[in-house]
Amino acid sequence: MKLPAQIIDCDVHHALKSHMDLVPYLKEPWKSRVIKFGIQGGGGTYTSPIGVQRKDAYAADGRDAAAYPELVMEHLVDAYHMDYAILTGSTYAMSIHPDADYATAIVAAYNDYLIDQWLPNHPKLKGSMTVATQDPLQAAREIDRIGPHPDIVQVILISATHIPYGNRYYHPIYEAAERHGLPVAIHPGAEGSGISNPPTAAGYVSNYFQWHTCLSQNFMAQLVSIVLEGVFEKFPRLKFVLVEGGVAWLPHLMWRMDKNFKALRATTPWLKKMPSQYIRDHCYLTTQPIEEPDNPKHLQQIFEMMDAENILLFSSDFPHWDFDDPFMIMRGLSAEAKHKIFYENARQLYQLK
Amino acid sequence: MKLPAQIIDCDVHHALKSHMDLVPYLKEPWKSRVIKFGIQGGGGTYTSPIGVQRKDAYAADGRDAAAYPELVMEHLVDAYHMDYAILTGSTYAMSIHPDADYATAIVAAYNDYLIDQWLPNHPKLKGSMTVATQDPLQAAREIDRIGPHPDIVQVILISATHIPYGNRYYHPIYEAAERHGLPVAIHPGAEGSGISNPPTAAGYVSNYFQWHTCLSQNFMAQLVSIVLEGVFEKFPRLKFVLVEGGVAWLPHLMWRMDKNFKALRATTPWLKKMPSQYIRDHCYLTTQPIEEPDNPKHLQQIFEMMDAENILLFSSDFPHWDFDDPFMIMRGLSAEAKHKIFYENARQLYQLK
Repeated sequence: MKLPAQIIDCDVHHALKSHMDLVPYLKEPWKSRVIKFGIQGGGGTYTSPIGVQRKDAYAADGRDAAAYPELVMEHLVDAYHMDYAILTGSTYAMSIHPDADYATAIVAAYNDYLIDQWLPNHPKLKGSMTVATQDPLQAAREIDRIGPHPDIVQVILISATHIPYGNRYYHPIYEAAERHGLPVAIHPGAEGSGISNPPTAAGYVSNYFQWHTCLSQNFMAQLVSIVLEGVFEKFPRLKFVLVEGGVAWLPHLMWRMDKNFKALRATTPWLKKMPSQYIRDHCYLTTQPIEEPDNPKHLQQIFEMMDAENILLFSSDFPHWDFDDPFMIMRGLSAEAKHKIFYENARQLYQLK
Repeated sequence: MKLPAQIIDCDVHHALKSHMDLVPYLKEPWKSRVIKFGIQGGGGTYTSPIGVQRKDAYAADGRDAAAYPELVMEHLVDAYHMDYAILTGSTYAMSIHPDADYATAIVAAYNDYLIDQWLPNHPKLKGSMTVATQDPLQAAREIDRIGPHPDIVQVILISATHIPYGNRYYHPIYEAAERHGLPVAIHPGAEGSGISNPPTAAGYVSNYFQWHTCLSQNFMAQLVSIVLEGVFEKFPRLKFVLVEGGVAWLPHLMWRMDKNFKALRATTPWLKKMPSQYIRDHCYLTTQPIEEPDNPKHLQQIFEMMDAENILLFSSDFPHWDFDDPFMIMRGLSAEAKHKIFYENARQLYQLK
């Protein structure tokens, strides 16, 4: 073919050699952010402008301390004389991927890798398996496959959803978890991404700061859904763990549920107790990131309102930026309450030692 | 045309004479619900199975006591010796309609009706105008048109959105409200309907009980968005009122915002104070539906944490089912705190008398 005499091509994608090409044209604070993290694409993703990893969570040779069992032992478990550490990983967020088969393959590989590389040589490390909730029946089969392993102590799910966790869509997962005596945990991290909903009921907030501040709200919605749909009547031995969702919102939510229950209980004829009682009987919240009021007395009052010593589990969120140092938090609690929160509640829940 | 010998029509919509046609085929509790409310269609709507109106909010002749100024005076304002009552109406929910021009027409008619039929003869009744947020510039013009009326004391918006209220999309509305010295209020009622998002970040909950329990979360998200986007730096005289969103969640949210601010303040260089301070300086929460812990001491502690006497405004939510009786709530507060919450805070905010 002979080329025409004159040509205009109206769509040519010229490329950046790297994100550094744009850096001379950016002002602060955007310049530093692009240097550090590249250009973070749209799609509702929220990325921390200060990164998520603590600056000291690296070995002397530069290795990520969270990526090697022996470094987790050294930097965290041995450093703080911990008896056990529950590994939560990060692949639970595969459940917001649109492709159920791809997500199922990745989480199965992760579960095998966890059992192969992390659990055998360090008896203080216990594992949270994960599943792809896009296919609940397949997820239940994965729990049947992995759940019997003696060092697997829980099933962890992303807290970001497009269908709330009380919905019967997920019940096969709970049935399998209950069958294997495994608590189900939810953990934030993908709110507003993939097939999950916007990260708040009001819509897409603008940045990581707002997104992170709003994460607790998703936990509240999940808890309302799970309790009021009657999940704990249907699966009476199931335990639920709310990881990294904050804690000080719990009293208000229990009060609001119980007040509404008095007027609207006909809606939920399957509930046999006050909604807050299901939370007390079946749910645990991990401590990090703990709220920090100016007046520490206020946190102690909140702890009393929620019966903290029977519902909280200590967590560090190692190696993330908002890590809570176990020696700094929980001041003002009795020795017995501390023992339960730091050790005994988790020991019983996860059936350790 | 001659009809063919044989015919099958594959789409014939036969009709119910009324929803009562289905009643003999329904079991309880669905039977009573359909008898009372008809068949409530899909589309994410949540309707109270016990109705929203109090059973006693009707005149002897059957008229809706909320629909006639003289009956509101008799049933509420005079009955409780109120000095003023802020009318909030119900058309603010037009902002979740997909058609901006239709919504704009309805709210303008409502504003005119309010000024024509409600405000002239009852000086104790003050009006909240509303606008259609689908067209923020047109909404600002409506505030310019209605706002100067001496008995219009606030602009009320629905709390359900698809874009959070801190977003600059809405700033023309705030600019106009500030120009006329009008507080902006948000009120729940349409979460999950129309063009608003699902009613929780986790997705569509199943029923009114769950939906109502989760409404506070939307208020939290709106407050995070408004404060952290810097709305109160841009509009320093603007006041914000959170109506009917609950109150006991406020301490946890302030703490979480302030803690995150310490790590992530570079994200919001426009903020000149702690986030919680903007709430204290610019925001009010109405009391109804007040949380009711089993131990009344707990609510008093929450009140102390949030400096309740300077941030709460009394509200009854007349004539709705979860009406709070002014003589029953707020026990345990000092006389001065009660005076501020029941009267003085609103008097100053709305520039009354």
